[in-house]
Amino acid sequence: MQIPTLNDILAAHSRIEPFINHTPVLSSHQLNDIFDCELFFKCENFQKVGAFKFRGATNAVLSLSPKEKSRGVVTHSSGNHAAALALAARMNGVKAHIVMPENAPDVKKNAVAGYGAEITFCKPTLKDREETTWTIMKKTGATLIHPYDNFNVICGQGTAALELLKEKNDLEIVISPIGGGGLMSGTSTCVKGINKKIQIIGAEPLNANDAFISFTSGKLTPSVNPLTVADGLLTSLSELTFAIIKKNVDRIFTAKEDSIIDCMLLVWERMKIIIEPSSATVLAIIKENPDFFRGKKTGLIISGGNVDFRKLPF
Amino acid sequence: MQIPTLNDILAAHSRIEPFINHTPVLSSHQLNDIFDCELFFKCENFQKVGAFKFRGATNAVLSLSPKEKSRGVVTHSSGNHAAALALAARMNGVKAHIVMPENAPDVKKNAVAGYGAEITFCKPTLKDREETTWTIMKKTGATLIHPYDNFNVICGQGTAALELLKEKNDLEIVISPIGGGGLMSGTSTCVKGINKKIQIIGAEPLNANDAFISFTSGKLTPSVNPLTVADGLLTSLSELTFAIIKKNVDRIFTAKEDSIIDCMLLVWERMKIIIEPSSATVLAIIKENPDFFRGKKTGLIISGGNVDFRKLPF
Repeated sequence: MQIPTLNDILAAHSRIEPFINHTPVLSSHQLNDIFDCELFFKCENFQKVGAFKFRGATNAVLSLSPKEKSRGVVTHSSGNHAAALALAARMNGVKAHIVMPENAPDVKKNAVAGYGAEITFCKPTLKDREETTWTIMKKTGATLIHPYDNFNVICGQGTAALELLKEKNDLEIVISPIGGGGLMSGTSTCVKGINKKIQIIGAEPLNANDAFISFTSGKLTPSVNPLTVADGLLTSLSELTFAIIKKNVDRIFTAKEDSIIDCMLLVWERMKIIIEPSSATVLAIIKENPDFFRGKKTGLIISGGNVDFRKLPF
Repeated sequence: MQIPTLNDILAAHSRIEPFINHTPVLSSHQLNDIFDCELFFKCENFQKVGAFKFRGATNAVLSLSPKEKSRGVVTHSSGNHAAALALAARMNGVKAHIVMPENAPDVKKNAVAGYGAEITFCKPTLKDREETTWTIMKKTGATLIHPYDNFNVICGQGTAALELLKEKNDLEIVISPIGGGGLMSGTSTCVKGINKKIQIIGAEPLNANDAFISFTSGKLTPSVNPLTVADGLLTSLSELTFAIIKKNVDRIFTAKEDSIIDCMLLVWERMKIIIEPSSATVLAIIKENPDFFRGKKTGLIISGGNVDFRKLPF
């Protein structure tokens, strides 16, 4: 199990910089007043494909050997990682195979197809998804790019925090959401590598709190049937991301569904930017724990802005 | 009738600069590809109170004499101008009276009250609104700040275009929406004052096309019961704004309701920023007139981002 370091993230950033959007760090006087702290939003909703996932996918594609590139990449995902890998592959002349459950929403199928990836549909079970992926790997020799259980993906995700700290070097706290743990692994490695004094706080929905339970008990404990509006945070940690999170993260807070939805609406209304529920989870833990964050200069990794506008939770 | 010049807008900008947000000019490769032209969005949705109206209101308040300031300001509005005047007045220690129809949505009443203005409710008729306003003026000596039929308001609104042209000096076209005509009056005065070769194009909903009809016929023709999703563009031109628009504007295009809604959704989805339907009208005329705009460097004044998220048109 290879654990990334700050140097790996610096190398990833040099590698992907020509391809990614350098996203802005935004702040809002109104939100600072409401939460009584200084908030700095690193806005990966403005990243290509609308999510930080493009950083990790791009780093993974660029880290392939020429031989591997010629054989293509494959992943199973119906979410942002699928679109991110499809676009990262296309921008680098690499063939992408995406395994998607046949019941995935049309809008997601179209997005991935629009980036020129070859979609293979499978039954919506873990078994069929993994078998379909293996079949493609055996047939084509394509490299599997896992959404988070992957060294190069983690290094790519850490580059958002790198840009945040370059722009704002006096932060006292950095918060990142935790789903499978790829973003938090990269973020925490980067931030602790630059300054051990900055507190790293994880944000998780109470209804999908496997990282909180694993972190507290010291034992990797996947979620069973998690159900949350923060659909990017349904996945559970892997051995790799759990190891990194155990080492770097200071604390994990969970947020209730109501807080997540309220904070999503608050950002839309006051900041006029679109963030997805997973991103709102980061603000929701501040709302639920005002004493912890009061007066603190806090960086928030806003993971993305991909929302189905016809199914809003408010 | 005093017609503003570029110098008046430059003076307004110096006056209001310490109070306003210097809003960003954004662009989107995806939208450029879709519309086959180069688009530069001047994002007044990121302005204070979420709309360009704060520029005009601030300039109007700052242009008062000390005696006038001590007597306060008054306006009748249930929209962005009311909130803008309330905040501009509060930031300058001036009392604001806002006349609102008693059936205005709670969210708007609360916004105005939150900025510390004194609200007087009236029946939702033009007659009662004007009488209530006159009563307040007579009683308090407050100065009426009309939402658009006002020299200082127009000069303030023109400062958005000034910032746009400072940042992007090779535009070939600038588009602004037209409601009462205050934003377009300021925008067109500014742009033509800087460079007569830049084409000034007005955008109006087909369902509230009083400016189009007035401009085409040469005769001021107010709308009768206009009905459009672009609720900021329901008002009709005044003598003053019509005179300025006749002088400066090259052409007015109208947009269908479907185009406005499609373009609003497109900006939300692709740019991850919240714009209101009135702002989407500007993009909708490009969608409906591709030949006119093809290949052109086009600046778009995005008027605001105040949307009722519980009543979305899509």
